[in-house]
Amino acid sequence: MDVTVRLYEIETGKPIVVLNEEDMKDLGVHIGDRIRICKGEKCYVTAIIDATTSMVNEGEIGIFEEVKKSLDLNAGDVVGIQATSRPKSIEFIKKKLHGQHLHGHEITTIVEDIVENNLSDIELTALMVGAYINGYDMDETVALTQAIVETGDQIDFGEEVVDKHCIGGVAGNRTTMLVVPIIAAAGLTMPKTSSRAITSPAGTADTMEVLAKVEFKIDELKDIVNRVGACIVWGGSVNLAPADDKIIRVEYPLSIDPEGQVLASVMAKKKSVGSDYLVIDIPVGHGAKLDDMNEANSLARKFIELGNRLDIKTKCLVTDGSSPIGRGIGPALEARDVMMALDGRGPLDLVNKSIDLAAALLELSGKVRKGNGRALAEEILNSGKARDKMMEIIEAQGGDPKISPEDIPLGDKKYEITSGVTGRVRSIDSKRISKVARAAGAPKDHGAGIDLQVGVGDTVDKGGVLYTIYSSSENKLEDAIKLAHEAQPIRVGGVILEELV
Amino acid sequence: MDVTVRLYEIETGKPIVVLNEEDMKDLGVHIGDRIRICKGEKCYVTAIIDATTSMVNEGEIGIFEEVKKSLDLNAGDVVGIQATSRPKSIEFIKKKLHGQHLHGHEITTIVEDIVENNLSDIELTALMVGAYINGYDMDETVALTQAIVETGDQIDFGEEVVDKHCIGGVAGNRTTMLVVPIIAAAGLTMPKTSSRAITSPAGTADTMEVLAKVEFKIDELKDIVNRVGACIVWGGSVNLAPADDKIIRVEYPLSIDPEGQVLASVMAKKKSVGSDYLVIDIPVGHGAKLDDMNEANSLARKFIELGNRLDIKTKCLVTDGSSPIGRGIGPALEARDVMMALDGRGPLDLVNKSIDLAAALLELSGKVRKGNGRALAEEILNSGKARDKMMEIIEAQGGDPKISPEDIPLGDKKYEITSGVTGRVRSIDSKRISKVARAAGAPKDHGAGIDLQVGVGDTVDKGGVLYTIYSSSENKLEDAIKLAHEAQPIRVGGVILEELV
Repeated sequence: MDVTVRLYEIETGKPIVVLNEEDMKDLGVHIGDRIRICKGEKCYVTAIIDATTSMVNEGEIGIFEEVKKSLDLNAGDVVGIQATSRPKSIEFIKKKLHGQHLHGHEITTIVEDIVENNLSDIELTALMVGAYINGYDMDETVALTQAIVETGDQIDFGEEVVDKHCIGGVAGNRTTMLVVPIIAAAGLTMPKTSSRAITSPAGTADTMEVLAKVEFKIDELKDIVNRVGACIVWGGSVNLAPADDKIIRVEYPLSIDPEGQVLASVMAKKKSVGSDYLVIDIPVGHGAKLDDMNEANSLARKFIELGNRLDIKTKCLVTDGSSPIGRGIGPALEARDVMMALDGRGPLDLVNKSIDLAAALLELSGKVRKGNGRALAEEILNSGKARDKMMEIIEAQGGDPKISPEDIPLGDKKYEITSGVTGRVRSIDSKRISKVARAAGAPKDHGAGIDLQVGVGDTVDKGGVLYTIYSSSENKLEDAIKLAHEAQPIRVGGVILEELV
Repeated sequence: MDVTVRLYEIETGKPIVVLNEEDMKDLGVHIGDRIRICKGEKCYVTAIIDATTSMVNEGEIGIFEEVKKSLDLNAGDVVGIQATSRPKSIEFIKKKLHGQHLHGHEITTIVEDIVENNLSDIELTALMVGAYINGYDMDETVALTQAIVETGDQIDFGEEVVDKHCIGGVAGNRTTMLVVPIIAAAGLTMPKTSSRAITSPAGTADTMEVLAKVEFKIDELKDIVNRVGACIVWGGSVNLAPADDKIIRVEYPLSIDPEGQVLASVMAKKKSVGSDYLVIDIPVGHGAKLDDMNEANSLARKFIELGNRLDIKTKCLVTDGSSPIGRGIGPALEARDVMMALDGRGPLDLVNKSIDLAAALLELSGKVRKGNGRALAEEILNSGKARDKMMEIIEAQGGDPKISPEDIPLGDKKYEITSGVTGRVRSIDSKRISKVARAAGAPKDHGAGIDLQVGVGDTVDKGGVLYTIYSSSENKLEDAIKLAHEAQPIRVGGVILEELV
């Protein structure tokens, strides 16, 4: 059937076209079916029919940016269209809905279709929900990881690469920015790609961005790592796991993530940068992502098995995630903690945890014998070698290497939250304190966030300051103060957890 | 945050808006999150953020038809936007993903959100896949049916209403158009709403449309039924089960339908027209939807239980679905079968099956005692009372009551498919013969389709005609002929089912 092109200047993220209902009946197709579109010899194979309305008349086809570009179409062009079959992936997705095992080549086909935008939101969601309910076994998870790696860019640094990862969920937990300079100062190669915050007040990439640039092309990245042995950059600026990004988009609205998908997502990004040794931080505790040691153990075992299958020597550390790490929560405040720690003045919990992680990496990679990691990590940090290395990294990434912690600009508006009673600090809830920091404007407002004045176990007087909220916006500061009073992220005094009537 | 409206003349079917990424960071929202949009006092509550691109600049909001209309927006208007929470339905959908039972009020909330377009494709698909894998129990199915009924229009005909339904899958099976006039001629009220073909070559609504109009408003429908005691109309023209239509849209691309959803979908449409007595035809056999007597039995039990819970007295007939019913396949050819049957000249299988169904309804409704239904149905058909009633129905629906079977126009291009061997007809595959009819242009091309010249068990000579393909298009006729030779829907002769090497 020949139809006339009607253009819409809209990016849909999918190869969607719009046909008139009458033409659809003629073609024998329905919403969600595929057509092949040809302009002369050039064909676009799997456009999804997504709407059938009064938008286009009979004999017309509504075309959006993606298809327009790929066929170089102009308004009024005549194109041939033809019904075509659905991608094979859909049969494989249905297998997963029926609880069947997917073979490696089936998973590869699905991931390729995901990367090429051949699947609609409906089809992609069905996969994700099927995997969430019926699970991926280890063979499937390995295949998924490999497919994600192969459909993205891969970087070869020409050296053994060490890496770390944290499953997240703990406010202020900015250990990466201490571990990387310690490890690099020990002479190992650590090209760290990190994420930006999605639902937290700061990701490592957001925090590093306070000190230096974090978006680089692959060549620039290799150059930085060749020169200084490490980097701390935003993983999203390189195309390491495009499949993963597209899967996350359908997971987010339901906040569910199939375990196999999480494992594959983490490990694919490690494999793509050629990691050989990997330490994974799994915080456990009330307010963290996991609150159960058995679950944490089970997850750790799976990370280790998957690592082995991918030739990445992997060690997991289950850590105390029951309260925030460090004083600052928010990009600038966390960057200040890190720079103070490199200067020998940092929060003890952040310093100790970072040394533990660095020690594990030094031992795992064979740099030192088992039991000697902590001593070397401490020596590197205390001697200032880690600080010097961080200055090199900051400079290599275009930042000011001479920045001192006190130079880091915080929000110019602030408010102190005080204790209503005299007593010991019983708990600081990561989720709640993070929400207050986000309300204050973090992570977009780098200077916004929370500066904790107390830690769990400290004694505080009535009227004593618990934390300071920073923001660049008067409105957002007010929102954050309101939320702080409602959510009460810090509990002082009594032991009552709940009152029932 | 205040933003300036940028309008796009596109219907999205969902309350979607587009924001710039920077503004999204400022608001702390992501793709799939909800915002409230206010123009002065008037607010639109749950717009879904669906894209973040170069389409709109910072400080702008991209608005499509649905939101534009509901807030009466013009390009350049300034509106206030504010992040807002997700609909409660999403928590309930997640319960279903976790295999938990949904309470009645939770299902009601979900169905209301579906009808009000408050759920994205991702969220709706998650519900459907969750229900497909984890199932709905009978309590959930009852709640789902009631919620679908309550969110749609309901019609009260002021009389006891009898109804029939077929789960479909058998080519040519146009019994409704014989059952309705028989039942109405017996003095019962039978306001039949039927579907159009989705993947078959003809639905009852498509076939009836050959003879009369099938799209009516509720008042017109009531008027027709008051006058002649029956109607045969397209259910889609009245708003009986809008939730169902929206659910089907996400089921179609994966061709999966959760059983509870199917049960609810069927029974809601019956309840909405006030059905008191219902006979359901469940064809079983190779090529039909079900090929297993146990499955058919189990489905029948559930229909009956659901019927009882809804105060609809329900009887199921499991029927032979191993080959097509009647001669014609396609709207005009099926309408011809029906009109010939009313005239005493119809295909015997179609006539017999229709009498069985009508008899069951006459007995179920108490019109006659058990065992006497068939005699009354035959008498009504053979005496011409059913034909007269059909003429009344056709006239009431704006058709020509004097139409004779021979007047029904068929496609002006035809081709005879002949047998390659002499032998008995062993099988006629409904799925395959339906595909040939669709390739010829049915259902949109009303005159297109198949005229079977043989039935299962007939003896045919080499070169003898098996069936005639009709079409109004030379191209489509050629496509259908090609498919007919490939698919071989009719098997003649030998008993070999499969050859293995």
